[in-house]
Amino acid sequence: MRIIDQRHLPHNFVVEDITTFEQMFTAITDMHLRGAGLIGVAAAYAMYLAAYEATKAPSFNQHMEQCAQRLIASRPTAVNLAWAVRLMLAELAGANSTPQKVDKMRELAAKIAHEDAASCHSIGQHGVALIEGLSQKKNGDTVNVLTHCNAGWLAFTDYGSALAPIYEAHRRGIKVHVWVDETRPRNQGASLTAWELLNGGVPHTLIPDNAGGHLMQHGMVDMVIVGADRITSNGDVANKIGTYLKALAAHDNGVPFYVAAPASSFDMELTDGIGQIQIEQRNPDEVRYVSGMRNGKVEQVLICPQGTPAANYGFDVTPARLVTAIVTERGISRACTEDIQALFTK
Amino acid sequence: MRIIDQRHLPHNFVVEDITTFEQMFTAITDMHLRGAGLIGVAAAYAMYLAAYEATKAPSFNQHMEQCAQRLIASRPTAVNLAWAVRLMLAELAGANSTPQKVDKMRELAAKIAHEDAASCHSIGQHGVALIEGLSQKKNGDTVNVLTHCNAGWLAFTDYGSALAPIYEAHRRGIKVHVWVDETRPRNQGASLTAWELLNGGVPHTLIPDNAGGHLMQHGMVDMVIVGADRITSNGDVANKIGTYLKALAAHDNGVPFYVAAPASSFDMELTDGIGQIQIEQRNPDEVRYVSGMRNGKVEQVLICPQGTPAANYGFDVTPARLVTAIVTERGISRACTEDIQALFTK
Repeated sequence: MRIIDQRHLPHNFVVEDITTFEQMFTAITDMHLRGAGLIGVAAAYAMYLAAYEATKAPSFNQHMEQCAQRLIASRPTAVNLAWAVRLMLAELAGANSTPQKVDKMRELAAKIAHEDAASCHSIGQHGVALIEGLSQKKNGDTVNVLTHCNAGWLAFTDYGSALAPIYEAHRRGIKVHVWVDETRPRNQGASLTAWELLNGGVPHTLIPDNAGGHLMQHGMVDMVIVGADRITSNGDVANKIGTYLKALAAHDNGVPFYVAAPASSFDMELTDGIGQIQIEQRNPDEVRYVSGMRNGKVEQVLICPQGTPAANYGFDVTPARLVTAIVTERGISRACTEDIQALFTK
Repeated sequence: MRIIDQRHLPHNFVVEDITTFEQMFTAITDMHLRGAGLIGVAAAYAMYLAAYEATKAPSFNQHMEQCAQRLIASRPTAVNLAWAVRLMLAELAGANSTPQKVDKMRELAAKIAHEDAASCHSIGQHGVALIEGLSQKKNGDTVNVLTHCNAGWLAFTDYGSALAPIYEAHRRGIKVHVWVDETRPRNQGASLTAWELLNGGVPHTLIPDNAGGHLMQHGMVDMVIVGADRITSNGDVANKIGTYLKALAAHDNGVPFYVAAPASSFDMELTDGIGQIQIEQRNPDEVRYVSGMRNGKVEQVLICPQGTPAANYGFDVTPARLVTAIVTERGISRACTEDIQALFTK
């Protein structure tokens, strides 16, 4: 497998060769790759690599179980990872021989990857209608979209979730401009979304995470669209820390707030996002240090006194009441139990 | 005059000698010093320096007028600056000779500085009751206070506004812990508030600006307290960009949201903060670059692609409906026209 090591973006484009389970595990835990869909796909391929290595282990099944447990614990908030790992484990049951198991693992990982891209493509097709509608309402004037974190093609096999409708609108010649939240502490907006949009030729402006409320108060945002790491059956949305604050501002200013995510991001067993979704805590040094380019080299600078402690919660939960609608590959759904259930049964 | 050049904090403590109007003007515009109260005091001393220099100008009064106009335009959002400059100008009218004018300028600047500290001291005495009340409600358990930007002693002649009640609570032995918003783009929280609290021995934790909503959802914030750059007669509050988002989260979670500011921060001529307060826009490079310490030196790193444009709005306005109360040197007032009027007439 070859992955883009996203830690080097936007300053360097580095491709990493992955040939072992441990390498893929490290790539997931240390965030060489990230994004709800992509860590699901990466975990699937990690399970394939684990199966390949399990052929030399004392017990094939025990080895697979252990690898599965480590993967599921590595990034607890995004459900796609656990979903992909469980699909892979279940696939093992239907295979008779060890070589067949390895083959089935490879085939299912490829299928998960393919379907991830296909879902995102559909999300783009469904979601573009929202932007098109706003464009018509503004008589063709630029539609200003605010997004948080990175839910572009870097976060999935391809296309992205939140950015897919934006790319599709741009492709169709609809005038669109994106306010890019820098997304502290890891700056996925500044480093990944800005890089994607710049390379895609989509007009955009980088803003601090603090700015969105002011922009909405002054009519400078027509819609907000973000991705999701986990959506409960009632429509609560776990996404990158800070998403909830933007949803509050959108609600307070009558700006529609959309979430774009494939069906694999729904956790239908949960009914209360704030109470039930485990929020990953990461290294406080991600808050204390900022990484960037200086004199052609990527370096880290300390932004606080050496003795200052920090806390680093990776995600927050936006209650369903603040979500205007959820854009999935199956169509656009309201964020409520009834409509979400219908999405999964039709 | 000697000022702390805050651009070097928290990594270096640099004191700058100011002997000319131009030096103080640069210190204000380039943010060697900042903070609502402090730029008022600095502007007053700038007017004294201007008066000293005006004695050699062709027209004393014309020189003073020009200097006043430049100061008022330099940092448009905080009203304390314009308020101090206008007080200084008005003082000139009562003087007969040029030497007397210079003397009066020096005396009034010192009075403004002294009153700024005295007001902040009173804010601390009034505001500590709020923390004390929460401490009693929690049976002496730690009171968790969230603050945004820096409204500590660095932002005034002394004591601070939002931090004054916290310092007073700490001095009285009340258990208090402060969540410090880093406050992008210029990181006044990470570099100034964290530095103040660390040096004052007040327990604190640095968080990204994105984290406050999550903390409030999980009961980890007992109150929010921030400073203000301008408060309208109806209680709308202009403060550092991002304040509005914290006020929304506080309101959504039933957390009290307090604003601490001296009477000099009120602009009684305004009745609509969002519509009437001019929001300063600063250099976009403050968003694109982050400054910090590396290998013993303060350096700047670029956090986005070289070609990415950025926007940098310095402040936002929190509507009065989201403000629980305003703590002033005259007491604690609700954020409404009636109570604010009473504050200024009693």
